Amino acid sequence: MNFDAFFEQRLSGLREAGNYRVFADLERHAGGFPRATRHLPDGSTQEVTVWCSNDYLGMGQNPLVTSAMKDTIDLCGAGAGGTRNISGTNHYHVLLERELADLHGKESALIFTSGYVSNWAALGTLLGNIPGIIVYSDALNHASMIEGIRHSRCIKRVFRHNDAADLRRLMAMDDPAAPKLVAFESVYSMDGDISPISDICDVADEFGAMTYLDEVHAVGMYGPRGGGIAEREGIMHRLSVIEGTLGKAFGVMGGYITGSAVLCDFIRSFASGFIFTTALPPALAAGATASIKHLKASQLERRRHQDVVAKVRKALDAHGIPHMPNPSHIVPVMVGNAAKCKWISDVMMERHGIYVQPINYPTVPVKTERLRITPTPLHTEADIAKLSMALSELWSQCALARAVA
Amino acid sequence: MNFDAFFEQRLSGLREAGNYRVFADLERHAGGFPRATRHLPDGSTQEVTVWCSNDYLGMGQNPLVTSAMKDTIDLCGAGAGGTRNISGTNHYHVLLERELADLHGKESALIFTSGYVSNWAALGTLLGNIPGIIVYSDALNHASMIEGIRHSRCIKRVFRHNDAADLRRLMAMDDPAAPKLVAFESVYSMDGDISPISDICDVADEFGAMTYLDEVHAVGMYGPRGGGIAEREGIMHRLSVIEGTLGKAFGVMGGYITGSAVLCDFIRSFASGFIFTTALPPALAAGATASIKHLKASQLERRRHQDVVAKVRKALDAHGIPHMPNPSHIVPVMVGNAAKCKWISDVMMERHGIYVQPINYPTVPVKTERLRITPTPLHTEADIAKLSMALSELWSQCALARAVA
Ligand SMILES: Cc1ncc(COP(=O)(O)O)c(C=O)c1O
Ligand SMILES: Cc1ncc(COP(=O)(O)O)c(C=O)c1O
Repeated sequence: MNFDAFFEQRLSGLREAGNYRVFADLERHAGGFPRATRHLPDGSTQEVTVWCSNDYLGMGQNPLVTSAMKDTIDLCGAGAGGTRNISGTNHYHVLLERELADLHGKESALIFTSGYVSNWAALGTLLGNIPGIIVYSDALNHASMIEGIRHSRCIKRVFRHNDAADLRRLMAMDDPAAPKLVAFESVYSMDGDISPISDICDVADEFGAMTYLDEVHAVGMYGPRGGGIAEREGIMHRLSVIEGTLGKAFGVMGGYITGSAVLCDFIRSFASGFIFTTALPPALAAGATASIKHLKASQLERRRHQDVVAKVRKALDAHGIPHMPNPSHIVPVMVGNAAKCKWISDVMMERHGIYVQPINYPTVPVKTERLRITPTPLHTEADIAKLSMALSELWSQCALARAVA
Repeated sequence: MNFDAFFEQRLSGLREAGNYRVFADLERHAGGFPRATRHLPDGSTQEVTVWCSNDYLGMGQNPLVTSAMKDTIDLCGAGAGGTRNISGTNHYHVLLERELADLHGKESALIFTSGYVSNWAALGTLLGNIPGIIVYSDALNHASMIEGIRHSRCIKRVFRHNDAADLRRLMAMDDPAAPKLVAFESVYSMDGDISPISDICDVADEFGAMTYLDEVHAVGMYGPRGGGIAEREGIMHRLSVIEGTLGKAFGVMGGYITGSAVLCDFIRSFASGFIFTTALPPALAAGATASIKHLKASQLERRRHQDVVAKVRKALDAHGIPHMPNPSHIVPVMVGNAAKCKWISDVMMERHGIYVQPINYPTVPVKTERLRITPTPLHTEADIAKLSMALSELWSQCALARAVA
């Protein structure tokens, strides 16, 4: 078999469908966020304003975070030097796990190399080890949860997105004696909608199921201490596992779960994806700890963030740019056509120095192609004006429908 | 179901078998490697010498690496702020991928959040997408490769460890028209033995198979530029994929594959574990690039490393401490009993301030329990003398057999 020809053919398929991805080659600027320098293939550069970062609060450039990282590099060096079990546990991991357990009001926490790995490893290990367990998974769950479930090869039911009644219907059909787990997210990142956590917990309780909540797009940003939507609603104790990332609002990298001491110890002891991999560099753990600590105490970033989000929505409304209404910080500007979505994104970049990545199939369904805009506390009024005017101009050029005011 | 009781019961099982893991809580010291401070549960601390780190060359404290990281934090901040496709590609990723492609003489490279994820995602994606492909996997392949293969659900044959003839036997039994891939490692980390790469490539060529080589425990340490065993043997071009880590000899964190441009583009475009996760922090990419660049040019670390390895073996021989002979830098001191292995490790730590993690089942087979010693260029003659004398003392106390000189 000619393998390279096979790969080439599959890539051509992507290109023809307009789904081939070209990465924007950026250089972020500490202190200048959301500004970045874009490196072009011809070697030239361009200054751009980033409107699609998941460093939602700009904590990636917060001096508390960056100096904690640099200080820890000075003290402990670059990497961890081993897996957690074989010389790789560093005191900064221990401190970070304490901070996370406290953030979510749980007995314990366990860190992973990423949010992706935390979902994959934790769900894979829970579902793969409890005999006869059935998982109930929200229809729009993230790839990392789906992969964890797939890994376990347990029985899987998919409930309609955010639909506690459908979950109930499915659970009622299964053997009451079978162990059960419900896996879902709080903020869904593409539509920015928020799940009915409490209703889902009610159903789970009724059937004695564990609850596994991904708060990746909520931690740091919601709740009085940044514990996420479950904290805001006062129901963290109702979740068996709260999972999160250190790479979005906390601005660094890594993932984690929190839960009972024995549950975390179980994952720690049996999850291949936790055991057989080099631990996070101490500096990342220290940076994340500083970020979490700060966001536990400070409301400023969360307040400014929500402010800017509201202003962006208002500016889009003023120009009749249609965006999906939702109760979160994610502003999906709906284009509904893959080619136009990519074209608008390209022209925004070339002509206006505004970077918003187009989101096309398979990340979102066909005909719901969008520009996913993520305002941060650091976008200015001028940035917002520029963004909405650029979109308005392109909206006319593309003959796209305006939203009715 | 009482989930916590179930977890507790499984953990008790581990405890009874002597396989429950307690992590040593360390604080590494940049500039003082292999010295570290151990934090004890009672809050006190102890100075220890680490003899089981996979920061094989001490690059984790190399000022070229740590200052590249700190400079990049100053320039770009803490995290990447997004997935590679959505604002997360940083210029330092691009530079690192070029450096890696050059290291292994390949057209392209692709970085992942860890070596574990690179194996899981690359093998899972290759094997999961090529219809009818059969994988031939070495019996001692690493967990991350096994998980990638498991993920793909393709047909799998396991060949006897390092046995090209057995591989040939298995390949000859399969449909000649079926696409095939052979997955193996160069240095196996628990026994320290090295695979017959060239023989395995001969067999693979005979059957038109792709070859996938994990050089995680060899990159940086072997070959004139640290390209690994395949570089040392002048056969990098015979491998379809060379996979490695940035977290061991390179001293940082992250993983990668290298291969043809179209193969890397294929993985880039289709691997869930690459696409749906926050990219490596720019500082890690910059630190790894500095480390690779340095080890391409400098022979000093590799030479001193091999020197110290030879001295450790000689000192162990002088005391009759049995260790597994192998052609690599890994020195497995064989104990052959889980309880004694753990006991020796504990006493070495308490009494002598020497940290060597015991390696028990399931990482190695029962009755081959061992202390896996990893000398580095930074261990001194005094460290070696202390290690071998401590082992000798405990060998007598445990009534363990001596090796015959
Ligand atoms: C819902 C959700 N869970 C998990 C992840 C993975 O987290 P990380 O980026 O830390 O790997 C993501 C996105 O990256 C996500 O959107
Ligand atoms: C052979 C092998 N491959 C891959 C890995 C994973 O690499 P990383 O630690 O970068 O996840 C390891 C160990 O950690 C390993 O021993």
